Amino acid sequence: MPIRLATPASRAYAYPLLIRRLLQTAIAAAPAQEIVYRDRVRHTYGTLNERVGRLASGLARLGVEPGTTVAVMDWDSHRYLECFFSVPMMGAVLMTVNVRLTPAQIAYTLNDAGAEVLLLHRDFIPIFEAFRGQVRSLRKVVLIEDGAAAEAATPWAAAEFEQLVAESSPDYAFEDFDENALATTFYTTGTTGDPKGVCFSHRQLVLHTLALLCACASPAYGQSFRHGDVYLPLTPMFHVHAWGFPYVATMLGVKQVYPGRWTAADILSLRAREQVTFSHCVPTVLQLLLAEAQAIDANPQGWKICIGGSVLTPGLARAALARGVDVFAAYGMSETAPVLTMTRLQQAPTSPASEREVETRCRTGLPIPLVELRLVEPGSEVPDASSLAEGELTVRTPWLTPCYVGKPAASEDLWREGYLHTQDVARIDAQGYLQITDRLKDVIKTGGEWVSSIDLENLISRHPDVLEVAVVAVSDVVWGERPHVLVVPRPERGKDLTAQEVRDVVVTAVADGVLPRFAVPERITFVERLEKTSVGKINKRALRDQYGTDVDRSLAPGPCRPTVR
Amino acid sequence: MPIRLATPASRAYAYPLLIRRLLQTAIAAAPAQEIVYRDRVRHTYGTLNERVGRLASGLARLGVEPGTTVAVMDWDSHRYLECFFSVPMMGAVLMTVNVRLTPAQIAYTLNDAGAEVLLLHRDFIPIFEAFRGQVRSLRKVVLIEDGAAAEAATPWAAAEFEQLVAESSPDYAFEDFDENALATTFYTTGTTGDPKGVCFSHRQLVLHTLALLCACASPAYGQSFRHGDVYLPLTPMFHVHAWGFPYVATMLGVKQVYPGRWTAADILSLRAREQVTFSHCVPTVLQLLLAEAQAIDANPQGWKICIGGSVLTPGLARAALARGVDVFAAYGMSETAPVLTMTRLQQAPTSPASEREVETRCRTGLPIPLVELRLVEPGSEVPDASSLAEGELTVRTPWLTPCYVGKPAASEDLWREGYLHTQDVARIDAQGYLQITDRLKDVIKTGGEWVSSIDLENLISRHPDVLEVAVVAVSDVVWGERPHVLVVPRPERGKDLTAQEVRDVVVTAVADGVLPRFAVPERITFVERLEKTSVGKINKRALRDQYGTDVDRSLAPGPCRPTVR
Repeated sequence: MPIRLATPASRAYAYPLLIRRLLQTAIAAAPAQEIVYRDRVRHTYGTLNERVGRLASGLARLGVEPGTTVAVMDWDSHRYLECFFSVPMMGAVLMTVNVRLTPAQIAYTLNDAGAEVLLLHRDFIPIFEAFRGQVRSLRKVVLIEDGAAAEAATPWAAAEFEQLVAESSPDYAFEDFDENALATTFYTTGTTGDPKGVCFSHRQLVLHTLALLCACASPAYGQSFRHGDVYLPLTPMFHVHAWGFPYVATMLGVKQVYPGRWTAADILSLRAREQVTFSHCVPTVLQLLLAEAQAIDANPQGWKICIGGSVLTPGLARAALARGVDVFAAYGMSETAPVLTMTRLQQAPTSPASEREVETRCRTGLPIPLVELRLVEPGSEVPDASSLAEGELTVRTPWLTPCYVGKPAASEDLWREGYLHTQDVARIDAQGYLQITDRLKDVIKTGGEWVSSIDLENLISRHPDVLEVAVVAVSDVVWGERPHVLVVPRPERGKDLTAQEVRDVVVTAVADGVLPRFAVPERITFVERLEKTSVGKINKRALRDQYGTDVDRSLAPGPCRPTVR
Repeated sequence: MPIRLATPASRAYAYPLLIRRLLQTAIAAAPAQEIVYRDRVRHTYGTLNERVGRLASGLARLGVEPGTTVAVMDWDSHRYLECFFSVPMMGAVLMTVNVRLTPAQIAYTLNDAGAEVLLLHRDFIPIFEAFRGQVRSLRKVVLIEDGAAAEAATPWAAAEFEQLVAESSPDYAFEDFDENALATTFYTTGTTGDPKGVCFSHRQLVLHTLALLCACASPAYGQSFRHGDVYLPLTPMFHVHAWGFPYVATMLGVKQVYPGRWTAADILSLRAREQVTFSHCVPTVLQLLLAEAQAIDANPQGWKICIGGSVLTPGLARAALARGVDVFAAYGMSETAPVLTMTRLQQAPTSPASEREVETRCRTGLPIPLVELRLVEPGSEVPDASSLAEGELTVRTPWLTPCYVGKPAASEDLWREGYLHTQDVARIDAQGYLQITDRLKDVIKTGGEWVSSIDLENLISRHPDVLEVAVVAVSDVVWGERPHVLVVPRPERGKDLTAQEVRDVVVTAVADGVLPRFAVPERITFVERLEKTSVGKINKRALRDQYGTDVDRSLAPGPCRPTVR
């Protein structure tokens, strides 16, 4: 047996990995650093620390104790950052509510998590009113007025956030406890059924923060987040802890800027005013920002933006680079806290960027420290230690959700063979870079071979007249499935775009040996917009529902089988 | 109670923090990166991984199993790096032997640790022969021929290192085990008594590696260690894991260069040849390198060198900067794995460096993530949550030795009040920077006030004719103690240096209000050299023994009290 550390002094050296410790580093090393909330609040890390104590004292007065679930419905704000620390530091569980779900879905998630206290921004009162009374566990609601009184009466509010903070003591005695205590929970809207709850412990979030900072801080040629940077999240803080970056930013002790509810114009002016250098968002948000930058002829030079949530296409990456944005991809999911991999250049960037550079920026990248990736045969039940060159991505790392809360069957399925199954299909190249090639649910199986819908989307996105593109599978009696390409043309110049032009892009790639012959799509549809999910991703599920069962009978007449995925 | 993570799937998500995981990141992301051993070996991380497996298989054949202590006596080499991984990855304990101790001391430490296997470089055969037969636990010795056969017969050797590696299988099945398993042990020579053993677990070293990389990778203006750097250690690997940097370098996946036994000339040519950009050493080594650089007129521009072990004086820092070296200080000790703090510039450096910049580079810096510093009244027995502005530095962090092995009283003393006591006196300024002002054992208490021997050393080191300086306390019947200044003049230009000139430096500082009046030394002695410890620090203990009891009776006649420290 390995010798285990256990000595008379072992009680003294014990040091649980608690979220409190991330804040402590910042307070010791950057007490005067700034935290900004749009044009309304500008204070220091010292004040953050004080308000974290006040909030805990206030919540304790409302009955919050270790184990209580405290739900938050707020925009990205200094308040939300305070909740990221204060609630878990009490030993309570922070539930970050996805405010883009329907009232019924939100009620479902609050009930499922047993939320007892809700911190509610006044903008979400109409949603709250729609489900009020349906959440059995809810005992107290704290209204966040955010500088303006609510329009209607709020007799159900037990307190107002700022008042609670102001009237409570900054000297809350945060104590050490088991690092495996739950810190956060939130719900992911999967492809089927009700939203599923995931959860993370203090230990998991501390390790995720350390490993993510190692990865962010160490690139040689940009794509970095380190001292001297100014941070602005463009991912909702309810969406997987804003990918963990608020914890990283705080531990680093850098200036943080929170935008509240925003438009693209707000963000561009906030960025310029506060000299923001690091952000992260989904491709759709980047597209919005670039459109606005073009409209007002802004060049946000030196802005590093990490892209996740959906694939970063070469077309979008080039558009960002042309505006001076140091754009790059990362990969993860709700179940993984979220970050697993992040890309970085291994050679100095050029201007304009080479084909290879753009490709590297769009790859989902290299595993961050402590992440083990393994590619397996999809659906394989046989444990196999080896990793394939291409297959379903499975992972181990210390920050994976242990389960879907209260869903044993789904949890078992997630964790087959001791690895978390991502349902993503991927390749790993000789340099170790991961490339997600498809969602297992999206993969197009045609004639017994796979066609990557993401490869097709990437390729077609490069056409200058294409604004957005999505490829879904349609069922087909001869081939099993065939790709269906949905294209949003670029507003002005894309109006004359034809299906043949789109098809030709693929035909050329086939001639170049980049894609297999059977990837050439027969069906190309022009649409005005692509439906997005609540977190801004293209909603493949909705597109499949709408277009996936539309069999192209001209190819092979016969009965239409329902698409079962 | 906080909710603890425990679910049906919890077995699957368990992920112990094992040293194996640091290597895994590197192998996945940088399989083709280089590892160099002087001019003899040049291979890849892929080969490192393979040799780590082979070494484990070979050690297993020699009877090493989980819990076995494997001692190493080698120069800094690719082999030592392999031991850093292979031995702990087996669940065995790596003992890094301080080869500069006397044979009797080495035998003491091997016995104390119960070392069963010794990996022995042929250069240390004479030392080994001197204590052979005195280590009861020793069962097997592996000779490291390092490219040349031993001069005498070695009938006691069970195997030769390279042969063992070559003949053993690369497919050792490293398994998961408890992250609190012991990984390493080594001995620190304190101020009194026998060497004391400290020990560290897998969890501790993984967390130290992550936090150290966070600190090293994130500075804004140099003083960094990240992708693109080339690593060369100049601290022995037996000295607190070469400060943990080989683990950081490997996790990063950067090129590593190991120098073996070296002279300053070897290092400068190796640095130039392999384009080394990051090293770490004690001040004495830096001084050696700068002298050699001056002799051959080399300018190792862009070399980042982290200084620890002893105080970095402004004089030495300026000399390094003048040669283009990005020099900066860190702080830690054997008991702390070792790194606790590291300095960094918060403004772009200038050329020449401003007084303030030099001062910042010499400060012991800011706490790295997860480090909690607390200054307490020295010798205080009363627990007190508050931190003083100046006092004895006590710490908490997840990588502190739980004890001195087999020494309960010393362990209790180390860990009073739940904090590890460093015996160093320090200040923390408004920006959070730690400044070690003295060793508690070295502190000069004169007339009830403290004079910092380090402040005096720093000040006097700036005189252009001073090469090295040490200040020790001499006992004094009137004042309790007085400072005694020992000066090594610079070879050519220092020959005319007078005691009055040295004293005037302090007098000026007193006039400027920088030092108290009673800091002006009466006793100044010129010496040819200052005795160093086995790890290259100035040996204050020996100097105190030699000069400390030399009471200056001219100040106040009376009986001489023995100095008890």
